[in-house]
Amino acid sequence: MTRDCEKPATPVLDRISSPADIRTLSDTALEVLANEVRAEVISAVSETGGHLGSSLGVVELSVALHAVFDTPRDKIVWDVGHQCYPHKVLTGRRDRIRTLRQEGGLSGFTKRAESDYDPFGAAHSSTSISAALGFTVGRDLGQPTGDAVAVIGDGSISAGMAYEALNNAGHEGRRMFVILNDNEMSIAPPTGAMSSYLSSLYASTPFAAAQKMAEGFEAALPGPIRDHARRARQLVTGMPGGQGTLFEELGFTYVGPIDGHDMTQLLPVLRAARARATGPVLIHCCTVKGKGYAPAETSADKYHGVAKFTVATGEQAKKLPNAPSYTKVFGQTLTALAEEDPKIVGITAAMPSGTGIDILGKRFPDRTFDVGIAEQHAVTFAAGMAASGLRPFCAIYSTFLQRGYDQVVHDVALQNLPVRFAIDRAGLVGADGPTHAGAFDIGYLAALPNMTVMAAADEAELVHMVATAAAHDSGPIAFRYPRGEGEGIEMPERGEVLEIGKGRIVREGEDVALLSFGAHLGECRKAAETLAERGVSVTIADARFAKPLDTDLIRRLVRSHRAVVTVEQGAQGGFGAMVLHYLANEGLLHEAQIRTVTLPDRFIDQAAPDAMYADAGMTATDIAAMACEAAGIDLRKVSTPVE
Amino acid sequence: MTRDCEKPATPVLDRISSPADIRTLSDTALEVLANEVRAEVISAVSETGGHLGSSLGVVELSVALHAVFDTPRDKIVWDVGHQCYPHKVLTGRRDRIRTLRQEGGLSGFTKRAESDYDPFGAAHSSTSISAALGFTVGRDLGQPTGDAVAVIGDGSISAGMAYEALNNAGHEGRRMFVILNDNEMSIAPPTGAMSSYLSSLYASTPFAAAQKMAEGFEAALPGPIRDHARRARQLVTGMPGGQGTLFEELGFTYVGPIDGHDMTQLLPVLRAARARATGPVLIHCCTVKGKGYAPAETSADKYHGVAKFTVATGEQAKKLPNAPSYTKVFGQTLTALAEEDPKIVGITAAMPSGTGIDILGKRFPDRTFDVGIAEQHAVTFAAGMAASGLRPFCAIYSTFLQRGYDQVVHDVALQNLPVRFAIDRAGLVGADGPTHAGAFDIGYLAALPNMTVMAAADEAELVHMVATAAAHDSGPIAFRYPRGEGEGIEMPERGEVLEIGKGRIVREGEDVALLSFGAHLGECRKAAETLAERGVSVTIADARFAKPLDTDLIRRLVRSHRAVVTVEQGAQGGFGAMVLHYLANEGLLHEAQIRTVTLPDRFIDQAAPDAMYADAGMTATDIAAMACEAAGIDLRKVSTPVE
Repeated sequence: MTRDCEKPATPVLDRISSPADIRTLSDTALEVLANEVRAEVISAVSETGGHLGSSLGVVELSVALHAVFDTPRDKIVWDVGHQCYPHKVLTGRRDRIRTLRQEGGLSGFTKRAESDYDPFGAAHSSTSISAALGFTVGRDLGQPTGDAVAVIGDGSISAGMAYEALNNAGHEGRRMFVILNDNEMSIAPPTGAMSSYLSSLYASTPFAAAQKMAEGFEAALPGPIRDHARRARQLVTGMPGGQGTLFEELGFTYVGPIDGHDMTQLLPVLRAARARATGPVLIHCCTVKGKGYAPAETSADKYHGVAKFTVATGEQAKKLPNAPSYTKVFGQTLTALAEEDPKIVGITAAMPSGTGIDILGKRFPDRTFDVGIAEQHAVTFAAGMAASGLRPFCAIYSTFLQRGYDQVVHDVALQNLPVRFAIDRAGLVGADGPTHAGAFDIGYLAALPNMTVMAAADEAELVHMVATAAAHDSGPIAFRYPRGEGEGIEMPERGEVLEIGKGRIVREGEDVALLSFGAHLGECRKAAETLAERGVSVTIADARFAKPLDTDLIRRLVRSHRAVVTVEQGAQGGFGAMVLHYLANEGLLHEAQIRTVTLPDRFIDQAAPDAMYADAGMTATDIAAMACEAAGIDLRKVSTPVE
Repeated sequence: MTRDCEKPATPVLDRISSPADIRTLSDTALEVLANEVRAEVISAVSETGGHLGSSLGVVELSVALHAVFDTPRDKIVWDVGHQCYPHKVLTGRRDRIRTLRQEGGLSGFTKRAESDYDPFGAAHSSTSISAALGFTVGRDLGQPTGDAVAVIGDGSISAGMAYEALNNAGHEGRRMFVILNDNEMSIAPPTGAMSSYLSSLYASTPFAAAQKMAEGFEAALPGPIRDHARRARQLVTGMPGGQGTLFEELGFTYVGPIDGHDMTQLLPVLRAARARATGPVLIHCCTVKGKGYAPAETSADKYHGVAKFTVATGEQAKKLPNAPSYTKVFGQTLTALAEEDPKIVGITAAMPSGTGIDILGKRFPDRTFDVGIAEQHAVTFAAGMAASGLRPFCAIYSTFLQRGYDQVVHDVALQNLPVRFAIDRAGLVGADGPTHAGAFDIGYLAALPNMTVMAAADEAELVHMVATAAAHDSGPIAFRYPRGEGEGIEMPERGEVLEIGKGRIVREGEDVALLSFGAHLGECRKAAETLAERGVSVTIADARFAKPLDTDLIRRLVRSHRAVVTVEQGAQGGFGAMVLHYLANEGLLHEAQIRTVTLPDRFIDQAAPDAMYADAGMTATDIAAMACEAAGIDLRKVSTPVE
């Protein structure tokens, strides 16, 4: 390890093998421990890359929670889970912390399979309060579990799901804890009125003095903090007898805001809460994303997600891309179309740069809408815009569009409204692992009447599909494309409007046909090359559309080849299934041998995308082997090629 | 029409052919009009059945909105849409109002295809604010549309989606209107802290005097109302300078609460709002469900959904059931199991009686959770309970589970947590039409790793499946069953735990096999009878599981029959697709002719369920014809049967 010499000295942390050890330390030692954990996390992420900023924001909170609560009997549920690196360092995973997000290594999120200290895994946002309420009910019904603590950020708590959970938890009135980790920053700059509201809670009062404590808590606090608290409480709630905060209105005891980096505030407040709570308590902690690491604190995105970097300078090891990313191609193509078409608008749900909608936003801020973490609203908002005559592009990752599925069905497909769904991160996504895989969208969209479903085989195809979607006013249309760089091919000057439901032949052959839907076309080409070298003649078709199917193309393929293999970067029930249904009901299944290459029926752990597809059994070699098996070709027996 | 003599006299309404006519009336005439509309709706629904209570609650509001706003240029978006009968009467559909919810008649909800006055259809809750914001943006970007008005109930506004929309609309700050129609009653008694909060807004002040107006509005009001309003505003917000209401905190100007049945309040407030608003305005109207019809007002469910009834008495024409409903069978079976297993808990999202969870709730109130309209939370809450060691049954209609799809993927399937999904209303559902069809769950669940997917062929099978789910601790499991009555077959004393992934042979034959998944088994039996009469020997298998598949059974069927037809009450991409994938990848597609009977690729309008399945091409006759076509049997040529 060339970086060993840079590893920080961590004498206190070195004595911590589990949270039980934390609970033997003095408050002063806990402060030292937090500093050491911070150094360790910076050092580790400099080697692995990852979600540094959010993890640095909860170092003190992580130490304090394990010091005060009886983990793992008490359940800490980290919302999203990407801020869990300090927690992992403290819960017996320090020896593997430098394998974060690597193949075979620790997950970048909390994960039940990894540790008893991860009672509920995450990666998508806003689930923690629901889960914590579930554990709370479990405790109350006699399950061997202690208190549940949800730790949720200000971005995540503004999602509808978190509101549903707060509402229900307030109604239930059970003893549980929600820590609002408010760093005034989700992935993007904060949006939404909730964010303004949170800001206003402490805007009028000095930051460090702004503890607002419920009366029962105030009594348990040390004298000086207690006095502060009482005064701050009156400042925040207005006059005595006035209405309380939003959280109090929902049935929570509200405590805060407190400085989430100040152990002398965190520890007594958490101890008081644990000792006194009889119902749901919300503790509002203000933290700084990237806290304690200057390059992160001063960076615009607070090192939300970083590559490997040099600790001394914060300089990240950026790989030079070989080709533009699909995301950028989408954003640029959409913006170019929007120049000519004033009806085009863009919608994102807290992912402006991740989806490329930020490119449109820079050029047309009035036609670009970031609704925050609110996929349900995003989809129906887009449907409303479409109903008014606009041409909305709703850009949401495949995995997050699951959050708006009913809205796609009920508000878009059923009403046949021309919402354009730009579905980034389709297929396997690499380091973010199974929670972020875009595995199910082909099936869950192609099942819907009125929906048109496309997938881009490469970045040039994506340009065409954006143009096709823009021109498609007769109903909803979706196009999916993978994470990361394109194939590096030549880009068209401008997108061509594709004929709906028509694929294309990419390579003509005679023996077997590969019918590809989407970005696995490159792998199909490799398979065809391999087979050609062995004397097997391969047709490759790019279906472009999973719905409507190019039935002429499919008929031709099954009639003129011994085997047809469908290939898609998605689960069973998607493109291949649509092809099989068609062939079955036309009585064409016997025309050729049919096979389907899809993601397997298991979740694939994080690794490089290529490695994940290899794990999934979807390499060119796998495809070639399946085609030969189907066609009855024994590769060991066919002649070696003439070079 | 035998009831013609009972039709109410409606001289003012008779002169209304469109909302333009409403706008010519005096305020006094508008009150008369409202009374006539009420009588007309009562009379119509007495003939058709339908959502009477909620429609009666918005009679005055419907008249007032059309009187004040310039519909259809201004867009009224009715949330859920089941309260739209007065609106339909007023918008050119009076001549068809007695066809509500009937085959070929008016939809029971708002529907774009039906009228320009329905700018955004609905049926699922909580979408209206998102849609209205979409229209608002359309207006601001130059589309030919006026103001948007969302009308949303107190139950619907507590859903996460509505909160997301309020939050975003507050942030956008655009002129738009949200009418909170607060009847303190969603389908079930209100739950959640939001409901208490709404109550508290006017609990402390006399109902009729409780107008709280933003200052700009107050000035525009008639003197006496203005004075009331100013005083009430101070009462509701606490002291001057204190915090405002939740809605104000989210960026809305809050007006109300006002009496939604009092035209002298409704008209001036709506006029003031329309004249003055520069940003988002929320008008809080208190209404009474079933208002103006004594049998409805005094009924526990306020005639939420009624059968045909006699106007004079309110007596409903209840059909005597031939068999217990699936819903009741589920609820009773679950309750019986819960007697023996203290770990069993039940969760519903505002549908306690619709799902049968109310039966559990009566016996075990502490183990029964109604979270309100909050499917996202419901699923993850259940996942948290499962993680704590409980055995949660999460009972949600197929169509509404779409609201919690990401939570099923991310919180349940990915973590392999044993949540039991009881999926009522699978398949086509009758009068509620396409918006409530449970068409997609087989595909969207079977695609998920770790998930077990069952469907009940009849009510006895449902008993077994509830028992099977209760015993299944190794991962998530779902079972689907249709709306309505069972088959009337003999019920088992207690449920048997089925072997996971094993189907059963129901009838042995030789020529063709029908492989049924779920409640279309009865139709398969009929098809087999028909075919047997024509000399075609039919095997019927009940797959029981779409996942894992009974591969032994499937192999046997394709090897011993000329044709195998899969049958399911769901869209393509579900059970049949899973069978086809299996056969393709095992190289077994050529063993027999395969066909798949699924719902067609279009939405099916309301009718009796049998008529809807006929429309879908899924009758016994259709199935028989498909089996013969597949097997190459020409029914015209086969011998007539020997009786």
